[in-house]
Amino acid sequence: MYIENSRKIHLARRPEGMPVAEDFEIVTESVAELKDGEVLVKNLWMSVDPYMRGRMIDRASYIEPFKVGSVLEGGAIGEIVESRNPAFPEGAKVSSMNGWREYFIADGQGLQLLPETGAPVQSFLGVLGMPGMTAYTGLLKIGELKEGDNVFVSAASGAVGAIVCQIAKLKGCYVAGSVGSDEKAEYLKSLGVDAVVNYKTSTDLQADIAKACPKGVDVYFENVGGAHLEAVLNQMNEYGRIAVCGMIDQYNATAPVPGPANLSLLIIKKLKMQGFIVFDHWDGYPAFVQQMGEWLQQGKINARETVYEGIASAPDAFMGLFTGKNTGKMLVKLG
Amino acid sequence: MYIENSRKIHLARRPEGMPVAEDFEIVTESVAELKDGEVLVKNLWMSVDPYMRGRMIDRASYIEPFKVGSVLEGGAIGEIVESRNPAFPEGAKVSSMNGWREYFIADGQGLQLLPETGAPVQSFLGVLGMPGMTAYTGLLKIGELKEGDNVFVSAASGAVGAIVCQIAKLKGCYVAGSVGSDEKAEYLKSLGVDAVVNYKTSTDLQADIAKACPKGVDVYFENVGGAHLEAVLNQMNEYGRIAVCGMIDQYNATAPVPGPANLSLLIIKKLKMQGFIVFDHWDGYPAFVQQMGEWLQQGKINARETVYEGIASAPDAFMGLFTGKNTGKMLVKLG
Repeated sequence: MYIENSRKIHLARRPEGMPVAEDFEIVTESVAELKDGEVLVKNLWMSVDPYMRGRMIDRASYIEPFKVGSVLEGGAIGEIVESRNPAFPEGAKVSSMNGWREYFIADGQGLQLLPETGAPVQSFLGVLGMPGMTAYTGLLKIGELKEGDNVFVSAASGAVGAIVCQIAKLKGCYVAGSVGSDEKAEYLKSLGVDAVVNYKTSTDLQADIAKACPKGVDVYFENVGGAHLEAVLNQMNEYGRIAVCGMIDQYNATAPVPGPANLSLLIIKKLKMQGFIVFDHWDGYPAFVQQMGEWLQQGKINARETVYEGIASAPDAFMGLFTGKNTGKMLVKLG
Repeated sequence: MYIENSRKIHLARRPEGMPVAEDFEIVTESVAELKDGEVLVKNLWMSVDPYMRGRMIDRASYIEPFKVGSVLEGGAIGEIVESRNPAFPEGAKVSSMNGWREYFIADGQGLQLLPETGAPVQSFLGVLGMPGMTAYTGLLKIGELKEGDNVFVSAASGAVGAIVCQIAKLKGCYVAGSVGSDEKAEYLKSLGVDAVVNYKTSTDLQADIAKACPKGVDVYFENVGGAHLEAVLNQMNEYGRIAVCGMIDQYNATAPVPGPANLSLLIIKKLKMQGFIVFDHWDGYPAFVQQMGEWLQQGKINARETVYEGIASAPDAFMGLFTGKNTGKMLVKLG
């Protein structure tokens, strides 16, 4: 099969501060014939995630920076539409890191066949994929969650946060979180979250978080940083754990943002604050899929998605992550 | 025995910022006759430690605040000079938290007989006491030190820091530290420390710490906070551990001091940052005394002391902790 006009998104230039449309470029390419051992994948869904903002900066990190003038990368779910590789028959669904494009050819490296779970395929970009696994690992392993803990989650209605909240509720915890709109607050309350702070309308984040956590905070699942971290540090209970998953407050900063002024509470309250990257814990993925698949089948986890249509909308979807456009997992539907 | 003029130090008022002489008051008391079961202790040595500054603030913490108009408390080594309690014979040496006074009566509660180690009795306020145990616990348990790690220690010539440096060297690590004078730097080098930064003369702390740690930092033993923390965060290696023992930079601050602007490195480098209080780990004290006693006997640990004479000098000794007057353990000799 020869595809004349497969579209993909390049990084046109490195964003300064908040990404803008001009940082992206839509490029058309032809996708050539297959060699032996190769497959042609048509992407059905692609993921946009806050961590991608970090890859747009030219710096040493746990993952290589994106190159200016090259196609972006990220999680995607595709279908094998032509195959010269018996391991990946036509019609099979695969996940890969080859997002931000409509078609690609692969030799099988970096492709994973989706396990059978009955869940929609795009779940493997969300609740059954990296964000779900991030929530699970961060809360249980890094946060060392115990039954009855008091949990606070920042950016609690996002792809990771909403799953964190629900796992914590399943584990018998008191759960509070922060979101950026009343609609998102309603969504969280419908999931059983005990208290929600709208940080955009709050005039005193510290007081509102304190009110939302009457018994303090044993586990803080941190997605935001900045003023959130300072406010929650004041509420932490002794021996509390802060699982640092993200600091989205700082991703688009153009100047250094000072950290919390109350870090010495780490000593006074004997706190552990630990950053993590989910890929370090990927050996636990099969066990996670089994558990999360079970919860999904039992209707115990709600996996809300926000969907943009078509590859041309991918930059908007990505930029929308930083302006609160998504509830739950932000996805782009390609197929 | 009736003591007419036993002296003690009261907290006259809560310090604002750096403590000054007027925050303390020397008070004379008489110490009355013993009842059955009681002992009279004459303090020989008392300890001043940076953590005491925190107890001078009226706030909830792991330990009760000092009361204005009451005697201060802290580690002390004394001798039983009169006894009506067979568990504590006359002449026995005891440690207690009843420092900042010359004599006191006790019923045995809160008194510990010193174990036999051959080390000078005041060692139990330093290398064999709380500071030594803090160094040992923070480095090995919180910092999860491994042979060959690259270690950085702030306030490296202090009571805790100098012991941290030496334990890390005994464990086969590369060790660098920061101090506030060239004389202290020389002392550390005489202990085998590989590189020392004088933070007072440094014009670029970040660059000097980077130069002192050519292979980065796996374990940071944090005594200072502030600019030190920001600089060392930049040098941390992946999966590094930051054992937060103290943040002396902030103890005398009169306004909130912003934290490091680069805390998102916790995620990128997958760091653990953990505060601790040594008393939570006191079950390990006997094993520590045995190990440290052995190292001392073998001459493998040097326990430098800075000694002020007489109880009237105790406030000066305490204030001197914040202006760099001590190398090694700061002590006041009373007996």
